[in-house]
Order: sequence, then structure tokens, then C-alpha cells
Amino acid sequence: MTHPEWNVMVATCPSRTSLARIANKWTAMIVIALSGGSLRFGHIRQAVQGISGKVLTDTLRDLERDGIVSRKSFDEMPPRVEYALTDLGRTLQEPLTALGRWAEANIEEVERSRNSYDANR
Amino acid sequence: MTHPEWNVMVATCPSRTSLARIANKWTAMIVIALSGGSLRFGHIRQAVQGISGKVLTDTLRDLERDGIVSRKSFDEMPPRVEYALTDLGRTLQEPLTALGRWAEANIEEVERSRNSYDANR
Repeated sequence: MTHPEWNVMVATCPSRTSLARIANKWTAMIVIALSGGSLRFGHIRQAVQGISGKVLTDTLRDLERDGIVSRKSFDEMPPRVEYALTDLGRTLQEPLTALGRWAEANIEEVERSRNSYDANR
Repeated sequence: MTHPEWNVMVATCPSRTSLARIANKWTAMIVIALSGGSLRFGHIRQAVQGISGKVLTDTLRDLERDGIVSRKSFDEMPPRVEYALTDLGRTLQEPLTALGRWAEANIEEVERSRNSYDANR
């Protein structure tokens, strides 16, 4: 289905703000981490190794705002909060998982290219 | 094909540097722009509306270094330089075009979610 009224190549098109959110390494890794089901903040942080608490907090809030991740508080002591992909968020699993797999599958070729490039400068 | 030796979720895995390069809005738009064939710098800049000359220069250099884009100089007067996707770069067309299409197809739902989120703060 094409949507001729929206075009990410147009600087002022609102869809570009959405592209900026989803075409992002942290978004990709968080969506991959949540692909197996809902997780608490600390468990996402363990899955997405090296992400800072601030970046994870900010990215989860942005993804919740865009309707990609849901945040659910459980009325327990101590309080428990779980994050999950929404139905909309699950439609990102395939393309973002594909990017992660691409990076893993091609890093050796990418590194050969980098070494060749750097040797010719 | 899985590559158990590489894992983007591990902070120190080299594949994460490749994910950072490809999970990027400018990379997505440049790959989409080059999907129709090779282009000169100025024509990429016209296609990816709003990109600055510096960001386009830097991103094209990074993509060339990673083996995703090729740069070819033609010995003419005035000199002509064309950029194109490599064979490796063409394997990114599908997932990155999917992200662009996703942003265009879902921006209305995303904007409804944003409005709802902002109204509840």
C-alpha cells in the first residue's frame, strides 16, 4: 500500500519524524529485546548492553509516545513496571530484526571494506 | 543464516558499529535515493530534501568506507563524480525501504498516539 500524501524524502513531511525514531540503533535493539515479550526496565538494560539509563529512559518514553511501546504499571509492592511492543510496534520487528541480522551477517565484509578504505587514504 | 559469533546486543561487538551506520535516517534516505541508480552529489541532495552538504558528505564517506556506496570519478571537464549502491548496499534496499514505507503508512496512527500521550501529561 502506498501513501502518496506522505513522503519521508520531503523535509517537512511529518513522516520523517517517525523515520528518525525508527531508523535508530537504540530503537532497533529495544524492539529486538522486546520481541520475546514484555520486560522490566532493568531487564531491557541488561539485554541492550551498554545503553545508559538516561538513553534507555528517553528512548522508551519516545517509543511510548509514538505508540510503539506500551508501559504498564502493576499495583504491587515494590511497584513493577513492564514494557512491551504494541500491535503497531510488532510490525517493526521484521525490518528492525533484519537490520540487526544484516549487521551481524556482514560485519566481516564491512570491516574488510573499512580496512581497504583506510589503507588508501 | 545466523552468525553466533557476532551479536549487536553486545556493546563491544564490532557488528554494533555497522548497525549504528545502517539504522540511521540519513542512511535510509540515501539508500532509497540511490535505489533508482547512480546519482551525482547534487542530485542526492535534491532527493534527500533538507540534508545539509556537510551531513551528506560525511554520510556518503562513511557509507563508502563500509562498502555500501561506491564513488566513481569520471575523467571529464568539468569532473563528474557519481555515487551508487554496491552489491552489498543493494541488500539494504529492502529493509530500509520498508522503514521509509512504515513511517509513511503509519504517521497518522503515530500522530494520534503522540497527541494522546501529550494530552495526558
